[in-house]
Amino acid sequence: MSQYTAPVRDMQFVMHELAGLQEVAKLPGCEDVSSDLVDAILDEANKFASGILAPLNRVGDQEGAKWDHGKVTTAPGWKEAYRQFSEAGWTAVAGDPEYGGQGLPKLLSTAVMEMWKAANMAFSLCPMLTNGAIEAVALRGSDEQKAAYLPKMISGEWTGTMNLTEPQAGSDLAAVRTRAEPQGDGTYRLFGQKIFITYGEHDLTDNIVHLVLARLPDAPEGVKGISLFVVPKFLLNADGTPGERNDVQCVSIEHKLGIHASPTCVLAFGDSGGAIGTLVGEANRGLEYMFIMMNEARFAVGMEGLALSERAYQHALAYAKDRVQGTEAGVRGGPKVSILHHPDVRRMLMSMKSQTEAMRALAYVVGAATDLAHRHPDAAVRAQKQAFVDLMIPVVKGWCTENSIDIASTGVQVHGGMGFIEEAGAAQHLRDARITTIYEGTTAIQANDLIGRKIARENGVTVRALIGDMRAVQGQLAEQQGEAFAAIRKSLDAGIAAVEAAVDYILATYNNDIKAASVGSVPFLKLLGIVGGGWQMARAALASQARIAAGSDDEFYRTKIVTARFYADHVLSLAPALAYAVVNGAAGALALDEAHF
Amino acid sequence: MSQYTAPVRDMQFVMHELAGLQEVAKLPGCEDVSSDLVDAILDEANKFASGILAPLNRVGDQEGAKWDHGKVTTAPGWKEAYRQFSEAGWTAVAGDPEYGGQGLPKLLSTAVMEMWKAANMAFSLCPMLTNGAIEAVALRGSDEQKAAYLPKMISGEWTGTMNLTEPQAGSDLAAVRTRAEPQGDGTYRLFGQKIFITYGEHDLTDNIVHLVLARLPDAPEGVKGISLFVVPKFLLNADGTPGERNDVQCVSIEHKLGIHASPTCVLAFGDSGGAIGTLVGEANRGLEYMFIMMNEARFAVGMEGLALSERAYQHALAYAKDRVQGTEAGVRGGPKVSILHHPDVRRMLMSMKSQTEAMRALAYVVGAATDLAHRHPDAAVRAQKQAFVDLMIPVVKGWCTENSIDIASTGVQVHGGMGFIEEAGAAQHLRDARITTIYEGTTAIQANDLIGRKIARENGVTVRALIGDMRAVQGQLAEQQGEAFAAIRKSLDAGIAAVEAAVDYILATYNNDIKAASVGSVPFLKLLGIVGGGWQMARAALASQARIAAGSDDEFYRTKIVTARFYADHVLSLAPALAYAVVNGAAGALALDEAHF
Repeated sequence: MSQYTAPVRDMQFVMHELAGLQEVAKLPGCEDVSSDLVDAILDEANKFASGILAPLNRVGDQEGAKWDHGKVTTAPGWKEAYRQFSEAGWTAVAGDPEYGGQGLPKLLSTAVMEMWKAANMAFSLCPMLTNGAIEAVALRGSDEQKAAYLPKMISGEWTGTMNLTEPQAGSDLAAVRTRAEPQGDGTYRLFGQKIFITYGEHDLTDNIVHLVLARLPDAPEGVKGISLFVVPKFLLNADGTPGERNDVQCVSIEHKLGIHASPTCVLAFGDSGGAIGTLVGEANRGLEYMFIMMNEARFAVGMEGLALSERAYQHALAYAKDRVQGTEAGVRGGPKVSILHHPDVRRMLMSMKSQTEAMRALAYVVGAATDLAHRHPDAAVRAQKQAFVDLMIPVVKGWCTENSIDIASTGVQVHGGMGFIEEAGAAQHLRDARITTIYEGTTAIQANDLIGRKIARENGVTVRALIGDMRAVQGQLAEQQGEAFAAIRKSLDAGIAAVEAAVDYILATYNNDIKAASVGSVPFLKLLGIVGGGWQMARAALASQARIAAGSDDEFYRTKIVTARFYADHVLSLAPALAYAVVNGAAGALALDEAHF
Repeated sequence: MSQYTAPVRDMQFVMHELAGLQEVAKLPGCEDVSSDLVDAILDEANKFASGILAPLNRVGDQEGAKWDHGKVTTAPGWKEAYRQFSEAGWTAVAGDPEYGGQGLPKLLSTAVMEMWKAANMAFSLCPMLTNGAIEAVALRGSDEQKAAYLPKMISGEWTGTMNLTEPQAGSDLAAVRTRAEPQGDGTYRLFGQKIFITYGEHDLTDNIVHLVLARLPDAPEGVKGISLFVVPKFLLNADGTPGERNDVQCVSIEHKLGIHASPTCVLAFGDSGGAIGTLVGEANRGLEYMFIMMNEARFAVGMEGLALSERAYQHALAYAKDRVQGTEAGVRGGPKVSILHHPDVRRMLMSMKSQTEAMRALAYVVGAATDLAHRHPDAAVRAQKQAFVDLMIPVVKGWCTENSIDIASTGVQVHGGMGFIEEAGAAQHLRDARITTIYEGTTAIQANDLIGRKIARENGVTVRALIGDMRAVQGQLAEQQGEAFAAIRKSLDAGIAAVEAAVDYILATYNNDIKAASVGSVPFLKLLGIVGGGWQMARAALASQARIAAGSDDEFYRTKIVTARFYADHVLSLAPALAYAVVNGAAGALALDEAHF
């Protein structure tokens, strides 16, 4: 069966050598983040992920969450695992210390989050959505709301949900119709139906805190008339304990391709007189608040792409080492060998491995930049880091998730015929991965955000600074000897040039022909991800070479250089083709009338 | 729900304008293949595919085939559909007229086969495997075997299976262990277990004819000691009717990611004294016979890639036309539009459409070449066409199936959140497509065949001739006016150069470093598919331009040119990157020790 062990060595390498853990540890509020603490947390999280969560991944897929007359029962073992998870304090890792959280830096919570998602993605969605609700309340909630909900959610005693989507309002939240009627006592009654609500109902906790987008009676049309409400499943008694059942019901859950154990709910608000809620922040600013929180959620989904890729890789590698089939290439009648000996299996595994490591490096670097953006004493540094984070969030989300589908599919392929048999477990990773490019904004939504708000709006300032950072690495590569570094440099040179050409095209086109620019948006997002990953793999190779030069004989470093070289030859080398599609691809894509498709 | 209508217009265009239907119709035995006959057959097949088979696709997925104590029950409606299918003569389309077949040319049966596979892939596997068994008996069976089995299988009264795989013998058939003991009366008793046997047991017909690979007691080790046997589920009475039950039992069926309605059986031969069979052809030549038949089966699986892509495209297009979400790009507060208006949705649909049309063009051209290879009066033409077919079979199989996974996944993406919900049906195409790169030889097996037997062994003669044919089209493109043709020519130029560079590398490397050549085998297969498809799309654009120049105002031709241009900009443009990986990618892929993965 599929097992999972967190790749702690690579996580540590990335945190220390690429993402600047030492700098993060100097930030205000991070003074306790010693190497020992990091080691201890990663070690404990790995134990929990591999020992408790990973073994439940398959039963979750097979049994799934079950709906019966409005009640949702989670898969066998889920409830106990959730209890242990919250009791061990894992729900509180990133939370505000004022409300019981541990306030650990993003860089560290990112590594921990990767473990939960790799071990059991369906499980991880529950704390992930709760984090979204925590953030919403922390960001704009009143003191009463904070006091009522934050300690309970941070401790994991209650979970939270995000209620955005309605049948007619998916990517287009301007179309939200759920109504909120003021009751004159500071509360509101909500009426409407929300769909695709992750963990909208379950049996893990005594209460569920729904964050809900809805319209006030006098609200303007469109995006500027949407407000945010907090609507608990059970209304709170005066002492803060769950009291009367609120008028929100789970009327069904979806039958999905993957993440079967995560109940995806249709929630009906107000079928019996109105679901009682309170306004979060100011009226009509709900969507604006959502956008502020979006970085967090999109980053987390990007981590799902990384995490599922790691899981699929471990799964395929174990099979490839175990499965004996055929003889060494070119050898007739020789001994049978494990399929890891076959060149194409190696190619597939190196492709999975190198892309996963590139994603980890880029994502953790963005995680560390988030810490600097939030906590650095110098406002200029904060602003610069925030701009980098804003630029890279859609890339981490879109690129890592698109990759994860391919990588999980490659994992199936490594298994041969067994990959198609559900019992082998490889197919689950593909099924689970398939949602990641859709929720929290499809890849196209990420790509729109990237070329519009993150590049065109500021005339490319931040992306050009990023290109400058990449060029600096080119210079360092030029100082290295050997074939591997020559190969890395060659592909990175071409990759950076490809990004520049594509950026030039987008900046020249966006404001006068947004459709033409948009045709290239997803190819550009992938391009920036691939080259961003190549940049980090080049840095990883340089850092490894420095260790080797300093006398280390740790095979990890030699392996990292080989992996970076594979990435350069097989993945980064795609960059010019993507730029070609960005720069040349609009006319053909836009020429047909609707009727001629 | 998902509907399907065969793309008859495009099929006709490809058959007439690209694949040379007129030349095929001049071949001996094809004299009756008039345009009218082709029209009538495509029309009738379309009615059956869209009216009978397509509506059963979903119930087949949901209900699947069910196993109970050795008996397999097909999904509701399956049995009746199969009866109608065989009564209408569809099982006999490609069969030998001497045994009741219609002997239609491959080009025509290819179009018909595409329809079955698009409408209901799980259903289509039953006649496909039967065709394999028919071919085996027709190719090397004795007169008695032919008389006993061919008319029944061609009429569809009985079905056939191919029994190759065993738990330890998947891609490596040298490891087959099933034993066949001669009884001295011309029959054999077989003992062993076969897995992954498609339609190995079912309730559609009165008998099932198993073709089985097994070893005789004195057989040499390895691939040269495997013989082929015919083992009917029910032994035949003297009058040819099914009699006593043979000792072959279905002990279980697999729970698979997709094609749920196609029972994938574990068959136990000889648990009660031996399954009685007869030898097909000569002893120890079973694998050789399999190789002769392999072209047919691999081509058919390639058609599954094409067919599922077409189905996924139609499904996604219907959703994109229907689903209203957001406003036109760059328009705030304008009317809501169907998502087909959004640039990235158009890009996705054009990508699906253009690749599907490219696959159809290339596959049908190979289909027509098969007719010429089999029937042309000039032996030199036959040999030349056979060499082309042999070269292209692994490409059609590997490239079309790899594409189909991406294309079906893109179809899910077009659906947004609904794509992940099984009820929407888009996910089924992805699940079904996922097997196609695995069975009948994984993509790596195809790619090995391509660079080894089909290119290196003959020192690149046929692939260089193909490059010459492509160059001729470049010349014709240069004579055309306009942006679209300039774009097509530019990408095709680069694509052909990429193929040449990769071929040079493979020829220089294969015989002295087979592992290095093999690392590039799958990227090369994809490269040859992409450029082969681009070559055909360029021909399609030229043929369309000729029609327009001759006065046609059929929008089909204008659309074809736009589609070919999109393909050139977005798909064909990947060729240089693939060649880069072929030429440069070996060292990084082969450098790591097993322990360092």
